[in-house]
Amino acid sequence: MIVSPQSMSFPELLPLRSGAAIRGYTLAYETYGTLNADKSNAVLICHALNASHHVAGLYAGQEKSEGWWDTMIGPGKPVDTDRFFVIGVNNLGSCFGSTGPMHVNPDTGKIYGADFPVVTVEDWVDAQARLLDGLGIQTIAAVMGGSLGGMQALSWTLQYPQRVRHAVAVASAPNLTAENIAFNEVARRAIVTDPDFHGGHFYEHGVVPKRGLRIARMIGHITYLSDDVMNEKFGRQLRERIIDANGQSQSTGDFLYSTQDIEFQIESYLRYQGDKFSEYFDANTYLLITRALDYFDPALRHNGNLARALAVATANFLLVSFTTDWRFAPKRSREIVKALLDNKRDVSYAEIDAPHGHDAFLLEDARYLSVVRAYFDRIAKGAS
Amino acid sequence: MIVSPQSMSFPELLPLRSGAAIRGYTLAYETYGTLNADKSNAVLICHALNASHHVAGLYAGQEKSEGWWDTMIGPGKPVDTDRFFVIGVNNLGSCFGSTGPMHVNPDTGKIYGADFPVVTVEDWVDAQARLLDGLGIQTIAAVMGGSLGGMQALSWTLQYPQRVRHAVAVASAPNLTAENIAFNEVARRAIVTDPDFHGGHFYEHGVVPKRGLRIARMIGHITYLSDDVMNEKFGRQLRERIIDANGQSQSTGDFLYSTQDIEFQIESYLRYQGDKFSEYFDANTYLLITRALDYFDPALRHNGNLARALAVATANFLLVSFTTDWRFAPKRSREIVKALLDNKRDVSYAEIDAPHGHDAFLLEDARYLSVVRAYFDRIAKGAS
Repeated sequence: MIVSPQSMSFPELLPLRSGAAIRGYTLAYETYGTLNADKSNAVLICHALNASHHVAGLYAGQEKSEGWWDTMIGPGKPVDTDRFFVIGVNNLGSCFGSTGPMHVNPDTGKIYGADFPVVTVEDWVDAQARLLDGLGIQTIAAVMGGSLGGMQALSWTLQYPQRVRHAVAVASAPNLTAENIAFNEVARRAIVTDPDFHGGHFYEHGVVPKRGLRIARMIGHITYLSDDVMNEKFGRQLRERIIDANGQSQSTGDFLYSTQDIEFQIESYLRYQGDKFSEYFDANTYLLITRALDYFDPALRHNGNLARALAVATANFLLVSFTTDWRFAPKRSREIVKALLDNKRDVSYAEIDAPHGHDAFLLEDARYLSVVRAYFDRIAKGAS
Repeated sequence: MIVSPQSMSFPELLPLRSGAAIRGYTLAYETYGTLNADKSNAVLICHALNASHHVAGLYAGQEKSEGWWDTMIGPGKPVDTDRFFVIGVNNLGSCFGSTGPMHVNPDTGKIYGADFPVVTVEDWVDAQARLLDGLGIQTIAAVMGGSLGGMQALSWTLQYPQRVRHAVAVASAPNLTAENIAFNEVARRAIVTDPDFHGGHFYEHGVVPKRGLRIARMIGHITYLSDDVMNEKFGRQLRERIIDANGQSQSTGDFLYSTQDIEFQIESYLRYQGDKFSEYFDANTYLLITRALDYFDPALRHNGNLARALAVATANFLLVSFTTDWRFAPKRSREIVKALLDNKRDVSYAEIDAPHGHDAFLLEDARYLSVVRAYFDRIAKGAS
């Protein structure tokens, strides 16, 4: 499936939960499949921290340019683009095409940087709703996302209950725990205290706070993987080889007895992930997206009563969690399931015994994919 | 109990596992209680990352100067200094009195900094053995430690089996998992990539890599606490108050909608811990001690067979773990227990149902303390 990105601009003001507003913004998006005559087969995909509107398919002439959920979405896949009109959208404040901190603030003529307004899950959903308006779609067959994307799916059912028939939230949670917030905060501090951050206005200094971004990504990666899968993939294996300062390849199999060189494969892997990430991800976007995670808490205005918070939802739900996910553990999904059942909502829930931790939601797992496939078959057959 | 630190200097060369050696070093230590006539009542306490020879008691005239294991050790306490002669020692490379990276290398006349040789658990045990030699103690009634200190206790039974009658390892592990190493590595990268680190020779620049130390400590703290206790202590509570740039106390109870200000109590707590730590802990010591943790793996030379590695041990053992410790989980202690039982060793094992995570080994928990008390009663009665 060859796809191409599109964009839609919105001249009107978008009021934000913070009290601020944003105007003159653009959303990058992609669509796959065909919108049917009664516009009833649209599926909106919401992304998590490090993803974009490029959800499925390939860009013409670019090998290995598969969308981030290409195992899940495409012709004949669980979310079948031969049946559904699937929309991927990049969120406001992200760094993959939609208006974000690296763009010019029309009010000042300067790059937003750290002045980009704080955005919440609810704000993103509002912006996504306007995109659907622009596409002429009133009601979506389903909204779907994993992790932070699942929070958006849940929020859709609360903010626009009449516009959503089904919500699919994978490896998600009704809010962050203290530990989740703690990991986000350490990552943010690593970025903010990098001297190249310049209070978030590093663009005008021609630098990027790569040190902080690397640390942030390394921390993130640890929380995305299970202890088990890390032991299986890396264990205590030593690095394969190391090139010393003179360009000599050191022999392997023995400790180097160094505090700064790479000894273990897991170190090599994490450093590589950190380096790669720091080349393309925007530091202010990292702060914004982790904060959106921190803030999300639909039960907050209901004295912590999630069931009461979800009472307005009318959609049917599929929730999926993974046994080894310690970031958003199954018990967090079960909290949502329970709150929905308390409201007598139609809920399907699958707890997949997968070894990969939080990352499992992005990976190919036959049981997981078949659960989603069955659910979308049901949606396609018009069962409500 | 009023105590005072002592030190012992060692002019002879100490060969290290790395192949390097260290000469002209000093160990800081403290002793509590009285060595009996046949010198059979000595107990050696080994410390973990952020601790020292100041294990118990108070320094004269200094309120709140309790040693780090004062709940455990002292007159009438589980390790009763009315019965035992307890020795606390600061390890080589640490920053609390023993020779370390901030001291002058006698070979060069310059501060060691990053040139301080890499030390291992085995090297520490060798240095501790020389301290015992200096104190005229051939055999110790027990060696005891928590976390990394437990690794030293275990290593004692392998390196000097004839000199140890009992070993007590609390919240410990036979080696680090990939995830454990990963957390250490992120912390080290935060320190090493802080521009104030200057390749580990920051002393001569008159700066300290505080940014990196703060991040390292914040990461560490997350791994010391359980998810449960973090939720119980902090949950999603907002900060109590915040002082803005104009010195005004902001009202609480609402989000500030900021990516850099403190919103949640857990953020405030972690920042405070990081700030405090960066004021006193040496960055090179942090690298050295986390590396000693990474390297420890007695089974390595036995093709990963821990039972074979522990075959030389002749001591009796007490192992204690805590149910919510996800850093060194109970299953890691059970690996040691199993390997000892495979060798038909005398092993007592207690798995304490405590909410505090890894930190539990430092805290007052009646069941935990009574298990240790009973074990030391048995030692005092001369049961072998």
